[in-house]
Amino acid sequence: MSLDKSDIIKPRAISGFPEWLPSQKLVENHWIATIAKIFQSYGYTPLETAAVELTEVLATKGVEKKEIYSIQRLHAEDGETSGLSLHFDLTVPFSRFVVQNQGHLTFPFKRYQIQKVWRGERPAKGRFREFYQCDIDVVGQNSLELCFDAEMLEVIAQVFSRLDLKGLVFRINHRRLIDGFYESLNVPPEKRAPILIEVDKLDKIGPEVLTRLLLEGNFGLNETQVASILRFASLKADVDSLESVLNGLGIKNEAFLQGSKELIELLSLVPACEGVSFLWEGSITRGLNYYTGAVFETLLESAPELGSICSGGRYESLAQNFTNTPLPGVGISIGLTRLLSHLFSTTTLGQGSQSPTQVFIALFEESQRKALAALARELRALDLNVELAAGGKFKKQLAYANKKGIPFIIIPNEHDFELKNMQSGEQNTLSKAELKNSLCQKLSSLS
Amino acid sequence: MSLDKSDIIKPRAISGFPEWLPSQKLVENHWIATIAKIFQSYGYTPLETAAVELTEVLATKGVEKKEIYSIQRLHAEDGETSGLSLHFDLTVPFSRFVVQNQGHLTFPFKRYQIQKVWRGERPAKGRFREFYQCDIDVVGQNSLELCFDAEMLEVIAQVFSRLDLKGLVFRINHRRLIDGFYESLNVPPEKRAPILIEVDKLDKIGPEVLTRLLLEGNFGLNETQVASILRFASLKADVDSLESVLNGLGIKNEAFLQGSKELIELLSLVPACEGVSFLWEGSITRGLNYYTGAVFETLLESAPELGSICSGGRYESLAQNFTNTPLPGVGISIGLTRLLSHLFSTTTLGQGSQSPTQVFIALFEESQRKALAALARELRALDLNVELAAGGKFKKQLAYANKKGIPFIIIPNEHDFELKNMQSGEQNTLSKAELKNSLCQKLSSLS
Repeated sequence: MSLDKSDIIKPRAISGFPEWLPSQKLVENHWIATIAKIFQSYGYTPLETAAVELTEVLATKGVEKKEIYSIQRLHAEDGETSGLSLHFDLTVPFSRFVVQNQGHLTFPFKRYQIQKVWRGERPAKGRFREFYQCDIDVVGQNSLELCFDAEMLEVIAQVFSRLDLKGLVFRINHRRLIDGFYESLNVPPEKRAPILIEVDKLDKIGPEVLTRLLLEGNFGLNETQVASILRFASLKADVDSLESVLNGLGIKNEAFLQGSKELIELLSLVPACEGVSFLWEGSITRGLNYYTGAVFETLLESAPELGSICSGGRYESLAQNFTNTPLPGVGISIGLTRLLSHLFSTTTLGQGSQSPTQVFIALFEESQRKALAALARELRALDLNVELAAGGKFKKQLAYANKKGIPFIIIPNEHDFELKNMQSGEQNTLSKAELKNSLCQKLSSLS
Repeated sequence: MSLDKSDIIKPRAISGFPEWLPSQKLVENHWIATIAKIFQSYGYTPLETAAVELTEVLATKGVEKKEIYSIQRLHAEDGETSGLSLHFDLTVPFSRFVVQNQGHLTFPFKRYQIQKVWRGERPAKGRFREFYQCDIDVVGQNSLELCFDAEMLEVIAQVFSRLDLKGLVFRINHRRLIDGFYESLNVPPEKRAPILIEVDKLDKIGPEVLTRLLLEGNFGLNETQVASILRFASLKADVDSLESVLNGLGIKNEAFLQGSKELIELLSLVPACEGVSFLWEGSITRGLNYYTGAVFETLLESAPELGSICSGGRYESLAQNFTNTPLPGVGISIGLTRLLSHLFSTTTLGQGSQSPTQVFIALFEESQRKALAALARELRALDLNVELAAGGKFKKQLAYANKKGIPFIIIPNEHDFELKNMQSGEQNTLSKAELKNSLCQKLSSLS
């Protein structure tokens, strides 16, 4: 059935909904598998919530309604509304799930969640409306030990070390410490959140503009206070210097002292990890009111313009919209799509093989098919990914294997096999047993 | 921040959007990983399209519009429409992707796609509005060899054999053969599709009702014709009897002969697989006009009421809505969520461990933490999933590990370690080196 030209719908890309080519998707899958493996190695259990929530669960106070996609049946009946929307993050669905299934879970509950989320953003370059998030959270009932805050940093450092992403800086702060600092300046509690929202912009707007915003905004701050805020925001310290830097500020109120103590303990618990550094930074605030203890952001030294690719922190109650039971927790989230999109466009990542196939078996005559299909199955039983040629001219078969980036080709002879390494051009005549051994050795050394 | 009772949103399950508990999600992940692994072992490359398509791409002729969920920003501006909808299967997005990226792909293009799809069904028991499909397709440019039809059956048989799902029957037919049969009855081509839609209901409605429907419907069929249709629909044959059963019908037209030849070749190419059988069945039609060659359905002998959990077939052109270039292909799709939902509710599957953790390390004093955390990291480097206790009473730590179903516990002594098997109760005193060896051995024998 062929259509009139006029019936043909011309497909086009939809802004904000990225799709990868096979060579890129193979990399994304490898990353997701590696992330999941590391998460599991620390005992985080997989969870997947529905993509859809009741709209009332998502559209709570403070949430930008236009960024939520509601769903509706096409040609729905008059007055029919689904009351459903796509989730815009994984934290709200997770908290709803925990409250709903509390009796079936074991606390502290450690879960990971790697799923797409959707946001009704206005289309713009590098702004995604569908993207992957990779979250871990630990949630306790009534209380949760501080060691889990350190575990967040350890797990993520392990992930990026395994993925060989170098130059990741964790930028860490603590909401109690920040509160103690503002208390020392006599800034009343209700002014702190709006001030922090401004301070959070420091990286983007610079100190001069921030100073003006803080002086001219309705925060009741004088020049001395603003200068102190800017100075505090410029402070940094690593695990070795942290204690003396914080002591040097001479702040003695309870909040500051408790925040300092927790921060120092947190940083002392995180093991060193090559390519990753951990810094306390006074400028880090995480705009959200939600966080109550440690807060985490990251900076990729090779791409500061990307912003934080991994953020999180400690919260006093996960599910305050759904229950009055305190469910304190700590979590962190990797913005995978943004990170991969950056790496795909600035590095050679994603330009490798188009296919998972490791071995291609050529076929000259249809009469060979059953025997070669059996050989292919024997190789698959050794955990190799194998394609058998569909037929046609040898030259065409070779071109196919070459274009897909398949590393090895088997060419059947009358009694034995030629094994050709497509990269080096090396070719050997081997018996079936030798062929199997050789492929297992060569492919295990590749991976 | 605690809320007034009146502010609390009571979360509730949404009909048709299934969610699994951790012990079930661990099984789903294992199934998805196994399916993906087998798909890859035959050279299928992963693909993931956006969840969202242009509505005009999805809502083509013959598609039930109400089953499509459109998306719309909450509180969108007046007159703002996204023109976007959630995909209801993976075939339409795949065909759109192939047309859009043809220049970047290598043909025959073998891809797999494991993703959620959404359908605006009316809520009913066992009817899902969000569910996983696991698809493979091979698509050629202009032509595609018949060996790939057989590969579909081989791959799926391997998947279910690996997952130890016994008693799967492939029910196979061929659209050319069916056409040839109706031609032999002198049923005009334009009447065949509507007749096939009725015949497709045979399993559900039985032969008597089908006979009445065919006689009373507007198909122009007499009693002899209807009797022949019913007789044809009752025929079955395995690979050994197929040729004689088809020859026995004495039909000689070209369509029938070509269909017979292809079917016989197809079944001869599929290797035997324990627990899986392959049958030609005259009743199988796959209602869709779309298919032009072999068609596949499955029956799970232990649950015929489930219907086909895996279906597909050969088509003449993948992307006829998007291009006039012939892209012939063959594909098959596993309805994973329906199958797992059935197994979770009728077997013990999904009632195992709540966590991927294999080893739990108890901790008696905070001063042990750094040394035990280092031990945990050493074990993780051996590919073990390890949790270190957060602290608290030993009895509570034990209860936590027990409730989660963690198989091994390490209890640190002054100089060595007790390794306790939680299932057998067996306990041994071991040095660190012995501990590592013992765990690697025991856990590799478990998996």
